Amino acid sequence: MSVTRNTRSVPAYVFGQGAFAELGSLVDARRPGAALFYVDSFFQNTPLLQELPARSGDAVVLVDASREPTVEDVDALAEAARAARSGGMSLCSLVGVGGGSVLDITKAVANLLTNPGKAEEYQGWDLVKNPAVHKIGVPTLSGTGAECSRTCVLTNMRRRLKLGMNSDFTLFDQLLLDPSLTRTAPRAQFLFTGMDTFMHCFESSRGAYRNTIVDVLAASAAALCREIFLGPGDMMDDDKREKMMVASYLGGMAAGNVGLVHPFSAGLSIVLHIPHGRANCHALSVLGEFYPEESALLSEILARQKVRLPKGICADLTEDQYEALYQGTIIHEKPLANALGEDFRAILTRPKVMELFRKM
Amino acid sequence: MSVTRNTRSVPAYVFGQGAFAELGSLVDARRPGAALFYVDSFFQNTPLLQELPARSGDAVVLVDASREPTVEDVDALAEAARAARSGGMSLCSLVGVGGGSVLDITKAVANLLTNPGKAEEYQGWDLVKNPAVHKIGVPTLSGTGAECSRTCVLTNMRRRLKLGMNSDFTLFDQLLLDPSLTRTAPRAQFLFTGMDTFMHCFESSRGAYRNTIVDVLAASAAALCREIFLGPGDMMDDDKREKMMVASYLGGMAAGNVGLVHPFSAGLSIVLHIPHGRANCHALSVLGEFYPEESALLSEILARQKVRLPKGICADLTEDQYEALYQGTIIHEKPLANALGEDFRAILTRPKVMELFRKM
Repeated sequence: MSVTRNTRSVPAYVFGQGAFAELGSLVDARRPGAALFYVDSFFQNTPLLQELPARSGDAVVLVDASREPTVEDVDALAEAARAARSGGMSLCSLVGVGGGSVLDITKAVANLLTNPGKAEEYQGWDLVKNPAVHKIGVPTLSGTGAECSRTCVLTNMRRRLKLGMNSDFTLFDQLLLDPSLTRTAPRAQFLFTGMDTFMHCFESSRGAYRNTIVDVLAASAAALCREIFLGPGDMMDDDKREKMMVASYLGGMAAGNVGLVHPFSAGLSIVLHIPHGRANCHALSVLGEFYPEESALLSEILARQKVRLPKGICADLTEDQYEALYQGTIIHEKPLANALGEDFRAILTRPKVMELFRKM
Repeated sequence: MSVTRNTRSVPAYVFGQGAFAELGSLVDARRPGAALFYVDSFFQNTPLLQELPARSGDAVVLVDASREPTVEDVDALAEAARAARSGGMSLCSLVGVGGGSVLDITKAVANLLTNPGKAEEYQGWDLVKNPAVHKIGVPTLSGTGAECSRTCVLTNMRRRLKLGMNSDFTLFDQLLLDPSLTRTAPRAQFLFTGMDTFMHCFESSRGAYRNTIVDVLAASAAALCREIFLGPGDMMDDDKREKMMVASYLGGMAAGNVGLVHPFSAGLSIVLHIPHGRANCHALSVLGEFYPEESALLSEILARQKVRLPKGICADLTEDQYEALYQGTIIHEKPLANALGEDFRAILTRPKVMELFRKM
């Protein structure tokens, strides 16, 4: 094992059923100034919006997270926030309330409020130069690890890839982890997103780039996922949703060195705009020759939780689309090498990759 | 489960065999200013001292950690550092290199450099008013969790108790976790200190005050301890010492709500000046009626690792000393209630407590 880089983690969390009631005091501790809340539009016309501790002068922005966030989404939101600031609004904190997409958008906008230019200029490793605006993450769906990762994944259609602003400045300053916020999540989405934790944890544990801290966190989070999705009771019982929030938080700290699932998943998201969690499941469903145990486990979980993963999603694609799927997958050299070694192209030939997509 | 307080963790770590070589760059990132190194005097005349990245103008203080640190120790070190500062030394960081005692001393002095008065004025919950001087923790022995806890336990003989400065400001700002630094630890001390992790983890998991994050971390760390002390190979093999460092780090985040072991252990440390790790083992060795599985496990581990725990340590004590042991134990109401409920005095009567000490 080599020495890790200096690894940062989110410095503070409040955790527990009902923790949402503490959001006001966390924001108030940052005042004076206005808070800017980015809330998943899923919560429009729900009590959560009324319970938001927004004060006079604060702004609440509803964010459509039904599709993966793009660099353009972030640029537009950052532009609006910059305009509000030039208009005299003094920002004390950005608060992201939602799933991985809303959390990632909040992180990206916070970076752009202290760094000039467009979102895509910061997609990559350590390109963010100045510390971001203070930000608080409030996940309402568990699994992506966006609440504790140092990245925010944005789709860039011009470059035809999904890439994060990978930076210590991207980390949230504060988390509020309230499992009761995931109670209303749609069942399939709860499973697909929760399984993201399982995916990046087992991929980390299988890869070439590892360390003991990450291994232990990944194993704990993966074990929680098995318990949640295959243990007695329903995956959406209170105690299971609580465990899923913990699995996402601990597993998120173990993410980073993924394997085959994430590159195939990224291809699907780029070409077919399939959300990340479900795209992972499509990918793992055809990767049985590489991950036999985990692929079988996914089938067992889907059957047990009565969630259907559509089949034939690549049935009617054009050759251009297949080529785009191939390119959108093979570009992810680091995770592919982590899983298969530097010579991964000898295994993942163009026909092989296309055959796998055809099977989805 | 209730909502946790806002829980802070050490924001950054560098981890791995050989990570010590990174200490210079971590300190340099804090310069200009002088670094103050507190190093366990165990390392006098060892290569570690030469490898310390101390520059001209820095100070290296050897700390005798053969006994538990007292408030007077900390006051004296803080006075010296304050004097150096008034003499024109500008401090950029305190660096603690040692076991739990040295780490706790470093944390306590850092608090006293920004808060006036004596150490004992800050023993208790959230009494530290001002953020401490920047500090880096470099453990050379694993198990106490001092590297990641929000306390620093100091013996106060005037008040006849061990009590920490329990504060968010007590947390280190940076950790450097290099398992190669534990290679020279004496065998018995390695076991006794490592078992501290097992003790606070199983006690947390058994108590009334719990949450799922702490439960998962405690279970992971306790499982690592079993593997280290009872798995194949020797407990001091490279991979085992590496796992022990991770167990201490993750388990330290789960500490806080201990049970019966720690109060009895504190009594021993106050009256007989037995170091914390070994005192824990003495305590657990006679607590079989409360913790049958864990007490048996301790015996198995001692036998397997060929480490002797002295017996009869309370054989020749006076009645006054027994009374002091009783008082030094029963004063820890919160952990005793965590283990036995609010009515713990009905179980832990004076004769019962004394009988347990007699059996050690």
